[in-house]
Amino acid sequence: EMEEGKLNLMFETRIGAKKQEMAFLRPETAQGIFVDFPFLYEFFRKKMPFGVVQIGKGFRNEVSPRQGIIRLREFSMAEAEIFFEPDEKSHERFEEIKKEKLTLLTMDDEEMVMEAGQAVEEGIVGSEAMAYYLVLTHRFLTSVGIDKERIRFRQHKREELAHYARECWDAEIFSERFGWVECVGIADRSAHDLEAHMKATGVDMRAFKKYDEPRKVRRRIIKPKMNLLGRDFRKKAVKIAEELKKVDVDGDMKNVTVNIDGEEMKIGGEYFEIVEEEVVESGKKFIPHVIEPSHGIDRIFYFILEHNYRETEKEGERYVLLSLPPSMAPIKAGVFPLVSKDGLPKVARNIERMLRKRGIMAFYDESGSIGRRYARMDEIGTPFCITVDYQSKEDNTVTIRFRDTTEQVRVKIEEVPEWIEKRL
Amino acid sequence: EMEEGKLNLMFETRIGAKKQEMAFLRPETAQGIFVDFPFLYEFFRKKMPFGVVQIGKGFRNEVSPRQGIIRLREFSMAEAEIFFEPDEKSHERFEEIKKEKLTLLTMDDEEMVMEAGQAVEEGIVGSEAMAYYLVLTHRFLTSVGIDKERIRFRQHKREELAHYARECWDAEIFSERFGWVECVGIADRSAHDLEAHMKATGVDMRAFKKYDEPRKVRRRIIKPKMNLLGRDFRKKAVKIAEELKKVDVDGDMKNVTVNIDGEEMKIGGEYFEIVEEEVVESGKKFIPHVIEPSHGIDRIFYFILEHNYRETEKEGERYVLLSLPPSMAPIKAGVFPLVSKDGLPKVARNIERMLRKRGIMAFYDESGSIGRRYARMDEIGTPFCITVDYQSKEDNTVTIRFRDTTEQVRVKIEEVPEWIEKRL
Repeated sequence: EMEEGKLNLMFETRIGAKKQEMAFLRPETAQGIFVDFPFLYEFFRKKMPFGVVQIGKGFRNEVSPRQGIIRLREFSMAEAEIFFEPDEKSHERFEEIKKEKLTLLTMDDEEMVMEAGQAVEEGIVGSEAMAYYLVLTHRFLTSVGIDKERIRFRQHKREELAHYARECWDAEIFSERFGWVECVGIADRSAHDLEAHMKATGVDMRAFKKYDEPRKVRRRIIKPKMNLLGRDFRKKAVKIAEELKKVDVDGDMKNVTVNIDGEEMKIGGEYFEIVEEEVVESGKKFIPHVIEPSHGIDRIFYFILEHNYRETEKEGERYVLLSLPPSMAPIKAGVFPLVSKDGLPKVARNIERMLRKRGIMAFYDESGSIGRRYARMDEIGTPFCITVDYQSKEDNTVTIRFRDTTEQVRVKIEEVPEWIEKRL
Repeated sequence: EMEEGKLNLMFETRIGAKKQEMAFLRPETAQGIFVDFPFLYEFFRKKMPFGVVQIGKGFRNEVSPRQGIIRLREFSMAEAEIFFEPDEKSHERFEEIKKEKLTLLTMDDEEMVMEAGQAVEEGIVGSEAMAYYLVLTHRFLTSVGIDKERIRFRQHKREELAHYARECWDAEIFSERFGWVECVGIADRSAHDLEAHMKATGVDMRAFKKYDEPRKVRRRIIKPKMNLLGRDFRKKAVKIAEELKKVDVDGDMKNVTVNIDGEEMKIGGEYFEIVEEEVVESGKKFIPHVIEPSHGIDRIFYFILEHNYRETEKEGERYVLLSLPPSMAPIKAGVFPLVSKDGLPKVARNIERMLRKRGIMAFYDESGSIGRRYARMDEIGTPFCITVDYQSKEDNTVTIRFRDTTEQVRVKIEEVPEWIEKRL
């Protein structure tokens, strides 16, 4: 999220044959989604709510990039924009998540652990939709390996809330080195962005809501006086009249400014009257509101490492274990022959190949003792180590060792891929 | 790949608190991999060959961006750098691909269809590794939906080949609108990049190859004359002597320039002699060569659409079909109730949910005739359409229609996810 005050944090460049046009590197990905809103609205067959996600690079000229990958000038972000009718921020799957507990630090600095449903009931969290995305964020963070005891949602205080934002919660993660760090921002940005684009470009960013029944409404409209317009504006009279009819009547309207062929014209009140008429409306246009969960991927990545890195001792030496969730480990299985002879390497190579063909990243290793090979895999977070031993040649089984418990089970070679797939 | 002449195509910006440092947006992703070479070499346990892939944005200030997404100023590229020993460009999986046929347009403008193995034998393709990546590229392009009859590999002519490149082949794809367009470049860049980084930064980018047996070699080295150095350079004499010993002897060497504490010093020949000595070497250092397949993702994406977009007629109206491979289709299955009553929508909704839970993107649609719903899915490339009809309620089966043949089969509801998974 980019506040006005940060404008000078944008990187500037120039494009074109003579570098004549100024351009900026995007400080967030979100605006691309807003610009596409009319197209996306069409794509979703004009039904609300709908959501759009995007992942990509953002660029900010941070004055002091520091703290490793916590504050970068080029960073990866994943943003979602979920569009709602302004007063319809309920969520159809709210029932599924309302019992989940969240640690909340409110704008009044009160910290509490509370079920999502209760937080909405008590007005601590502003809408079902906001609560839903808080829970979804919490689930995502824990599923990739962030310690759930070190996540909290901190509400923006009134003075730090951007003027357009109704409500904003940061998912903060606790670091031994850096304290609490904002990693995800979940903001109810109201209609701010679409409104701003509509104002700047004139493109209609509104959605249409059909009433259950067409409604008769009385409405005030401008009725141009054609005889006077014709007398004073000649050829332009018809165009002026058309533009006048489009204007929303607001108050008394002593005069009205219209745009005729690129020229701003102020039309005095003597050229029109304001009348009330009854019309049948089938629905109304509105600018959707948006809730935006915005994830700082590099920061989350840092915390996955910090929360899962464990240093212990083994036989007097430093021993490192990276307890990544199996789904996050870059290598899923180490494959070792117990010894590099008697045909064991060939059996192990075949298992490695079989796993890779199934899309399971495996790593073959025959160098050093078995303990040393386990240690290498533990250090990079590989959850499973498969060892081919002499028994393997007799009964086609191998041992599989689980990183965190060092427990071993014997599994039939042909069942190894499925055994691992089930645990990813 | 970025030639020197294109330097001014780079976008320039400034970073830092006072925007004091000049910086450029990367025109290719490759250099990041080269800079990391020493680390990557370590990661791969110092064994060659190994490969590193990267996908990301590149930026070039194209004077005339045009032809839709064929020539963009911000584009997506996927690059691989595979590092080899300079004279070891064989490939361990060459046997698996050598019978595959490729359309080649050689630097002498000869076009031929030839097996990869024969092309290497006849010296048309320079190495097994190059041929392997040509075939891999061909397989990739056809697997994502590019028509194999409209792919050719065009060899760079001598005059268009960058000075450092040994050999370069472009995978070109034929467009009805734009003719033959380069979409992938596969270049043998020799040691150029690592050499250039080593020269500019002084970081050792070399790999080490151990000999089978240690070798005794005679070698010429510089032997400093310590008495003269001590007399004339005092405290610096020892450092100068150390630096002199490190210099590779090349020719007569009337004098040698060494860097002492940041100061360049020219040391005359009177301060050292060149002697020959016998040393035992266990191996040698070398700068690896690299083969780089570089994919233009946006262009490939354009051709996936062009080659799969079919316009026909149906009952006098234009009918559009997008024949994407099932693996590439954004939506895998449409799910329709035959009619919006009698409980059929509920059954269809359950199937949609079941598919999504299995990670298969499904789209529920109950609006309009079945024909209209098929048409919507055909137009966006959805390969399978599942229809729930009255028979479904009796025997728990549905029809599945395949986009390209419009053939329908009846499948048990519980078997639908697996039926689709097998065909993705």
